[in-house]
Amino acid sequence: MKKIRVGIFGATGYAGLNIFRILSNHPFVDLKYLSSHSNSGESYKKLFPSFNTDLVLGPTVPEVAEDLDACFIALPAGETSKFVIDLIKANNNIIVIDLGADFRFKEKEIYERTYNIKHNCPEILKESVYGLPEINREKIKTAKIIGNPGCYPTSVLLGLYPIIVNFKESIENIIADSKSGVSGAGRKIAKDYLFCEINESVKPYAARFHRHQPEMNEQIKLISSKAPDLIFTPHLIPMQRGILSTIYVFFKENLPGEETIKELYYEKYKNEMFIRVLDGDLPSTAMVKSSNLCAINICKTSDKTLKIFSAIDNLIKGASGQAVQNLNIIFDFPENLSLTNLPEVI
Amino acid sequence: MKKIRVGIFGATGYAGLNIFRILSNHPFVDLKYLSSHSNSGESYKKLFPSFNTDLVLGPTVPEVAEDLDACFIALPAGETSKFVIDLIKANNNIIVIDLGADFRFKEKEIYERTYNIKHNCPEILKESVYGLPEINREKIKTAKIIGNPGCYPTSVLLGLYPIIVNFKESIENIIADSKSGVSGAGRKIAKDYLFCEINESVKPYAARFHRHQPEMNEQIKLISSKAPDLIFTPHLIPMQRGILSTIYVFFKENLPGEETIKELYYEKYKNEMFIRVLDGDLPSTAMVKSSNLCAINICKTSDKTLKIFSAIDNLIKGASGQAVQNLNIIFDFPENLSLTNLPEVI
Amino acid sequence: MKKIRVGIFGATGYAGLNIFRILSNHPFVDLKYLSSHSNSGESYKKLFPSFNTDLVLGPTVPEVAEDLDACFIALPAGETSKFVIDLIKANNNIIVIDLGADFRFKEKEIYERTYNIKHNCPEILKESVYGLPEINREKIKTAKIIGNPGCYPTSVLLGLYPIIVNFKESIENIIADSKSGVSGAGRKIAKDYLFCEINESVKPYAARFHRHQPEMNEQIKLISSKAPDLIFTPHLIPMQRGILSTIYVFFKENLPGEETIKELYYEKYKNEMFIRVLDGDLPSTAMVKSSNLCAINICKTSDKTLKIFSAIDNLIKGASGQAVQNLNIIFDFPENLSLTNLPEVI
Amino acid sequence: MKKIRVGIFGATGYAGLNIFRILSNHPFVDLKYLSSHSNSGESYKKLFPSFNTDLVLGPTVPEVAEDLDACFIALPAGETSKFVIDLIKANNNIIVIDLGADFRFKEKEIYERTYNIKHNCPEILKESVYGLPEINREKIKTAKIIGNPGCYPTSVLLGLYPIIVNFKESIENIIADSKSGVSGAGRKIAKDYLFCEINESVKPYAARFHRHQPEMNEQIKLISSKAPDLIFTPHLIPMQRGILSTIYVFFKENLPGEETIKELYYEKYKNEMFIRVLDGDLPSTAMVKSSNLCAINICKTSDKTLKIFSAIDNLIKGASGQAVQNLNIIFDFPENLSLTNLPEVI
Repeated sequence: MKKIRVGIFGATGYAGLNIFRILSNHPFVDLKYLSSHSNSGESYKKLFPSFNTDLVLGPTVPEVAEDLDACFIALPAGETSKFVIDLIKANNNIIVIDLGADFRFKEKEIYERTYNIKHNCPEILKESVYGLPEINREKIKTAKIIGNPGCYPTSVLLGLYPIIVNFKESIENIIADSKSGVSGAGRKIAKDYLFCEINESVKPYAARFHRHQPEMNEQIKLISSKAPDLIFTPHLIPMQRGILSTIYVFFKENLPGEETIKELYYEKYKNEMFIRVLDGDLPSTAMVKSSNLCAINICKTSDKTLKIFSAIDNLIKGASGQAVQNLNIIFDFPENLSLTNLPEVI
Repeated sequence: MKKIRVGIFGATGYAGLNIFRILSNHPFVDLKYLSSHSNSGESYKKLFPSFNTDLVLGPTVPEVAEDLDACFIALPAGETSKFVIDLIKANNNIIVIDLGADFRFKEKEIYERTYNIKHNCPEILKESVYGLPEINREKIKTAKIIGNPGCYPTSVLLGLYPIIVNFKESIENIIADSKSGVSGAGRKIAKDYLFCEINESVKPYAARFHRHQPEMNEQIKLISSKAPDLIFTPHLIPMQRGILSTIYVFFKENLPGEETIKELYYEKYKNEMFIRVLDGDLPSTAMVKSSNLCAINICKTSDKTLKIFSAIDNLIKGASGQAVQNLNIIFDFPENLSLTNLPEVI
Repeated sequence: MKKIRVGIFGATGYAGLNIFRILSNHPFVDLKYLSSHSNSGESYKKLFPSFNTDLVLGPTVPEVAEDLDACFIALPAGETSKFVIDLIKANNNIIVIDLGADFRFKEKEIYERTYNIKHNCPEILKESVYGLPEINREKIKTAKIIGNPGCYPTSVLLGLYPIIVNFKESIENIIADSKSGVSGAGRKIAKDYLFCEINESVKPYAARFHRHQPEMNEQIKLISSKAPDLIFTPHLIPMQRGILSTIYVFFKENLPGEETIKELYYEKYKNEMFIRVLDGDLPSTAMVKSSNLCAINICKTSDKTLKIFSAIDNLIKGASGQAVQNLNIIFDFPENLSLTNLPEVI
Repeated sequence: MKKIRVGIFGATGYAGLNIFRILSNHPFVDLKYLSSHSNSGESYKKLFPSFNTDLVLGPTVPEVAEDLDACFIALPAGETSKFVIDLIKANNNIIVIDLGADFRFKEKEIYERTYNIKHNCPEILKESVYGLPEINREKIKTAKIIGNPGCYPTSVLLGLYPIIVNFKESIENIIADSKSGVSGAGRKIAKDYLFCEINESVKPYAARFHRHQPEMNEQIKLISSKAPDLIFTPHLIPMQRGILSTIYVFFKENLPGEETIKELYYEKYKNEMFIRVLDGDLPSTAMVKSSNLCAINICKTSDKTLKIFSAIDNLIKGASGQAVQNLNIIFDFPENLSLTNLPEVI
């Protein structure tokens, strides 16, 4: 198969770095361009001395699109959408996989309210696809612009999906209590992410509102317009990678037995190579660490209440791995190409 | 003031060890006896080589009660209640502070169902007091037997207390999602608590039922018999000490404004030296680490839903510190004697 | 290329588990057999629920060798050598890669003194090869039995090798101060490896003597019989994977300039795909995490003293990865097959 | 006893914060003033919300010295010495305990070369005392200015002291390989101290030269002018608090037996309440965590080589605790006042 030419804009953040790592094992990808705002001109190896690469970081400029078949973008909200317009001008055929929020929403008003930024290309928003393959695979196949899901939404939506689809109208309340490793904050240099502030501590944040809530709500309501807004609390815990979402669902009517509900999960995910519906065990983030997997289990605790547990590696299935999964789908490669690593359970 | 003579039965577990540490700074305590099942006959210093003590571990036998004014007990469920009968025979005046579950319940049926053990002295159960000072201080003052609360119940009940008291009949649902450091499991030598199993992972456990649920439910219903059973999920996170409980409460009727609810907390806890109702910040376990504090804040997220956050050090306020607090109350010492350490926020 | 049939004896320990993970990405390996002492009869997936495998653990019996071209062994010292005799009886052509110490020594006396066990097949010892490819590649190519090096020896020997070769007679003293993650202890369930004993602590162990010392000394003296015995101290630090060895070498004569010494490293390792001689940076274990790399740098601190820093992932280059590297060499596969993952620098 | 009035200049860094914590339990200290460069005007409680204090941070100005009997200073190198001149002008009787390097050296040339700063008051340098009580107690008693030792020097010097004193002329080489928790870097907000950069990694730094080397060398040579310069390598390991120094000493002549050497330690430290010369166990940082203790043991590995292990809590004995110990000595309080906490061995 002919190799595709790929670029990464924003290659020095945690997402870009992990895309680089994954693609370095991809047989049909020719990595042509890496950009960085602050390190342009430096060799990639200077930043990551144990990497054996000759690539030199370039500026984040759209002209390079001419020589690319696809690109990954990890730029700040608002800048991305502007940049994408220019990219498409430079190469109308380029496939864009954006790891930020600019192309995750169908309704620009929600985006603008959530991020407090005017969207630069609402017309493109209409054709972009929310890149959660387990839900949107068919649309992804023909997409030219992917809004790669956020890490919390990936964990929550994969856990909730079979429930929303099957109990469309009878869901009363949804609570998602998520526990995340610190890499979710990216390479931000701030007091809150210092080792001594994180170690031996757990803390909630954004208790009143988190930007991933509207993203989750929009996706849930695309499946069932009657579903309630979810109540969400993210927490930082002292680890690097991984998100566990504990989801509590209250129903208006009595549920069927737990085994019957479980069957809905097996059925929905029977052909999914990255979803592990567990039998007996509860998911832990160790079960999926460094892999593109999502591990799920449920527990019915009363006639009308259900607990759902969903674990991912926030940097892989929650960001870079899912982005490469989307690339594989679009280019009709085997969906797990360069994503076959088993999790580092130890 | 005359010193009281104190013993610790089960002095080598995490709880006993921390009681020893705290009492070593207590001006009115004369630590006379330490017992251990497996290390009887050894010097305490052999186990904890940096401790400068001449105490030698003795067997766990009731006769030594004759020379004690008070004792702390950390023995397995079921054995404690048997042992307490013998202790009282040996010294009818001894004050007993039990760190296990044998004296936490009013109704022996709940205890027996929860722990699957027949209670050895239900008659004593009637006079024992649940040792949560912020709720039961008056009863504790005259108690002879204290059932020291579990770590999860301490964090959850302190967070919920002002709400249960003030919204007795209008609470529809309570969810407590707790995140605990690993020391909560005690010194159990098992695969699940190995460093490599815990590090870089978060996992839920006991999702269907945890033994602390009936303890919490009984206490809640003593305040409001109309309150619902709570839904509870404990999680292990990769840290040593600390519990953060994130509590979601759904109400049947519209709530007053957040500030009004907050006032209920300030009012209820205004004289409590170990409760910190925060202003602005959300609690983290770092805020209370190595101290006997409980840090609390709330967030009203809709007309009928409230989030409550409550953080403690599971080994101190959740076990040994609270036990010493109870001792101070019973003996009419200043309540914070030997418990004045500020938290290790770093 | 035709696939080879491979077995793992002792597949549930950390080493066996990671060999399984690596081989699951190996295009020319057909994984036929997994054994376990304590879990025989169970499905592998039961132990590692997120793995998608149908393999069932069998007993550790030699007969299965008939259907294997190669096998990895992770059994206790002493048992392995006995087992190998039976394996060879069952299949005289089988390639054996032993991850224990039974085939690491040339002189059986050193082995017997170090492990306090009589060696079961000293005659086989003579033909076995110490599997450190960067030093012994030619011998490995034709070996039938590999003694896969210990984790500490791998890190120390790769760091020292260019120095021993080039300054054969002028080395006065060598100190290796190694810092290891806890997985080096394997899946041993013991108090010392509990999360609460390891977390937030660093401790030396085996200060008087460690079993890897004779292994290192024998290898060093095979290169230069005049080299001194090394002084070694291993330390446990609160992390899962990784070893950093800080090596101090005192010389009898003045050294050339640091750049000249560095050239010896570049020269010696110029064709090694898993060695990174760093330029400017000092090695960290993050630089090599989850990869088969060894990162090295040096620092000349006086005319006659040199510091050498060497970092590996103890579970990969220090055990399972190096074992697969040896397999690749023996079967004339590309040496890095299934070992191309870039390190998880974040 | 009458209370002394104390101020902390630089109260929001890790050292200042821990001095505040310790002094909050000191019966004879009246904490009158806290200063901060960047948070002047804010309440201390705003920064540390679980602290129950009404103190408001003020500017770092010398005039406040008029109302102070003693102060702790944690300002940047160079600024401190200037500030001390002004402090003394404002109050000639004030006791100054400086946690930086400005008053640690006897010879200003060494200071100036090491820190690349001109010393502002070399005349004061002459009367300042290096505040390591176990070595300098008599001088400290009458000192007016204390240079509180660095964290690495505290761990190394306490480990070496009995050896330097007893084997003055026969020491050939000293290597100190130190492993430090991250809090040693203070509250510096930099990429290197982010959780994701530190977690699951160990790395050496300052391999060529570290600022604590001249400090250690000067102190060693004050005891024995014939002692060699030490070779030093600091390492960052993934924990918050604690330093373990592994010290290798080569001797010119044969040593006496290990027990005899051990006796030198027992003898030298027999009256020291903060030194634990261990019997059998090797020191770990857990053994001393959150305490003012230093745990030491030795291991003779050949006729002429000795290993010494020394563990401290870098924030307590390595900084704030030692500073308060110096205060207690100067004011003739019991030396361990407010420093009696037993270590958090778990």
